[in-house]
Amino acid sequence: MPHYFSSDFTLGILGGGQLGKMLLTETRKFDITTKVLDPSPDAPCRIACNTFVQGNLTDFNTVYNFGKDVEVLTIEIENVNVEALEKLQTEGVKVYPSPQTIKNIQNKASQKQFYATHGIPTAPFQVFQNTESLKKAINEQQLTLPFVWKSARFGYDGNGVKIVRQLTDLNFLPNDQCIAESLVPFKKELAVIVARNAKGQVRTYPVVEMEFHPEANQVEYVLCPARIEEAVAQKARTIAIQVAQAFEVVGLLAVELFQTENDEILVNEVAPRPHNSGHYSIEAAYTNQFEQHLRAILNLPLGSTESKVAGVMVNLVGAEGYQGKVVYENIEQIMAMEGVTPHIYGKKETRPFRKMGHVTIVNPNINKARQIAEQVKNTIRVIA
Amino acid sequence: MPHYFSSDFTLGILGGGQLGKMLLTETRKFDITTKVLDPSPDAPCRIACNTFVQGNLTDFNTVYNFGKDVEVLTIEIENVNVEALEKLQTEGVKVYPSPQTIKNIQNKASQKQFYATHGIPTAPFQVFQNTESLKKAINEQQLTLPFVWKSARFGYDGNGVKIVRQLTDLNFLPNDQCIAESLVPFKKELAVIVARNAKGQVRTYPVVEMEFHPEANQVEYVLCPARIEEAVAQKARTIAIQVAQAFEVVGLLAVELFQTENDEILVNEVAPRPHNSGHYSIEAAYTNQFEQHLRAILNLPLGSTESKVAGVMVNLVGAEGYQGKVVYENIEQIMAMEGVTPHIYGKKETRPFRKMGHVTIVNPNINKARQIAEQVKNTIRVIA
Repeated sequence: MPHYFSSDFTLGILGGGQLGKMLLTETRKFDITTKVLDPSPDAPCRIACNTFVQGNLTDFNTVYNFGKDVEVLTIEIENVNVEALEKLQTEGVKVYPSPQTIKNIQNKASQKQFYATHGIPTAPFQVFQNTESLKKAINEQQLTLPFVWKSARFGYDGNGVKIVRQLTDLNFLPNDQCIAESLVPFKKELAVIVARNAKGQVRTYPVVEMEFHPEANQVEYVLCPARIEEAVAQKARTIAIQVAQAFEVVGLLAVELFQTENDEILVNEVAPRPHNSGHYSIEAAYTNQFEQHLRAILNLPLGSTESKVAGVMVNLVGAEGYQGKVVYENIEQIMAMEGVTPHIYGKKETRPFRKMGHVTIVNPNINKARQIAEQVKNTIRVIA
Repeated sequence: MPHYFSSDFTLGILGGGQLGKMLLTETRKFDITTKVLDPSPDAPCRIACNTFVQGNLTDFNTVYNFGKDVEVLTIEIENVNVEALEKLQTEGVKVYPSPQTIKNIQNKASQKQFYATHGIPTAPFQVFQNTESLKKAINEQQLTLPFVWKSARFGYDGNGVKIVRQLTDLNFLPNDQCIAESLVPFKKELAVIVARNAKGQVRTYPVVEMEFHPEANQVEYVLCPARIEEAVAQKARTIAIQVAQAFEVVGLLAVELFQTENDEILVNEVAPRPHNSGHYSIEAAYTNQFEQHLRAILNLPLGSTESKVAGVMVNLVGAEGYQGKVVYENIEQIMAMEGVTPHIYGKKETRPFRKMGHVTIVNPNINKARQIAEQVKNTIRVIA
């Protein structure tokens, strides 16, 4: 394999959205030659890679042909053709995360089964092949209301998740494979990003805390560090490492967790790549998550995961009631606030709750950062 | 003028080298459409801009045609055709820094005259139209040895500067316009980067300290903050602001300074753009110099110039005795050190003392950072 600091080396990325774009920024620092596959001709990655290929990420031939002349292949989205990745792997392409890891994670039912098999704490659950069999289980009192319904496939950003309190809540759900998860009362939603390289070196980022938008079920604020006790943080980091080791992940693994009422830590779900919960690291950490992902998949030494300062990330999503050519109202006002950096993803059209960018607020003091974050949130609006 | 957070807005950049490349990284954050002019088809900027134009930066028509359809035009190098910029400015293109500022700075003789006119402290000097008239002045005892000879034009990275101790030192100098500057004994070489937007908002970065390579006369280490007394730092920042106001600069102005034996501050020279002495800010500052330059030329509010942590920058220059396809020997070893980030500029060929990249070392403690920087310097080698 040619060395990555060489023009003969190419890194392939499946997916050309905002995560790929921020990853590409880091490849410029190391002068790594890149090639990106994405279905959209307007993909944010288009201008920052060496070669852009427009094509379907779930099509075998497209992914196989894209990947066969790169040395290392990574993803920014899990919904890709795994069979093509398996074939590429047998032919010598280094695929990180591995096709097996992606397969285990892609489907939420197999992901939950994986936790059960590996003794990883997670909320109790049952798997159903379709809504009919789920209804049957309720009727036969093998499943009791309320519970959390999760689509096994296609779920992202709060889609594919619903709290079922009464039978009529089931009416508009797709009749597809799903899981029913016990509704565990929790204090906080946390996340830990684990980095692991092929040598097996492992580091965890500090625990972050996520605050959700009550309606859209999207993350509204991510706070680093989480405002939790050190013992809870330690437990969360230990469990996150356990999960990363079990998946034998190479690259990053973002582990989303629940802190229950009695301070147990349960694994909610994972993503084997840079993640929204790690965006704060661009401004706050010694090594941001995108650089760290590159270090891990190129089998370089991992960088420090500690923070220079506290950070809060605010997602910039399309305001309700607006659709069309995007305008970032009052962006100049937020840029005048202390320690505020907007990241605009470059999507041309906005629609309600669409992720259009994020804003990072850094400050030596986490409470001060959270305060400024709220001002940011109340000032900027993504409209059309 | 279309708003910068709009696809109808284009930022033009004259010069597509490493400074332009790092500036382009920041344009991705704000999704700003960019167009770059550079003579080299292999310019590092090529892949990260929307439009790349290959052409001569000093040719009137090339620069004029390049600039006439952009809204804001900036530079990463001063050696550009100023007449074309003047014409573009009359036609409504916002040119930052202004053609007048560039003209005042391009020529070291007029730059020194400018300081004299504006009461800015600088080492005593005389201007000569060529080496002959300089020799005549020595013979007629209007100029005494030793002195510092500086070419009025074409000087960069230690070229065009020479200490003249005896007459034979003049033998190999180009017979061109030059200045003879008194050899002022100094303790340290310092620099201050000033940011100023069109509204007139001004901020200075902390004073940095530069350590030079004894042979190549290139900066070897840049330390932020400089290890100097607070009163000296204050004086340096005040003088730097005075210089930026005098030039009415919009964007960044890097002001290089001497701290004399008796703690006077003298202005050495300036650059109206992001500068090597500010590279540390990518990792260490709340707002790095490239983002700040964008904020300033787009007339956005300036960001905080303070540091999150201390930073030291080491230039990566080609090792003596090597020429050809570049290899970064031991780069993995330095990446294992605490707080170390390499920046590889993407130049394919190395030669002795060519700037190929830089490495930033950040740490809460400046002395610890300086120590690690020395380890970095003794470990990595840029060879062929």
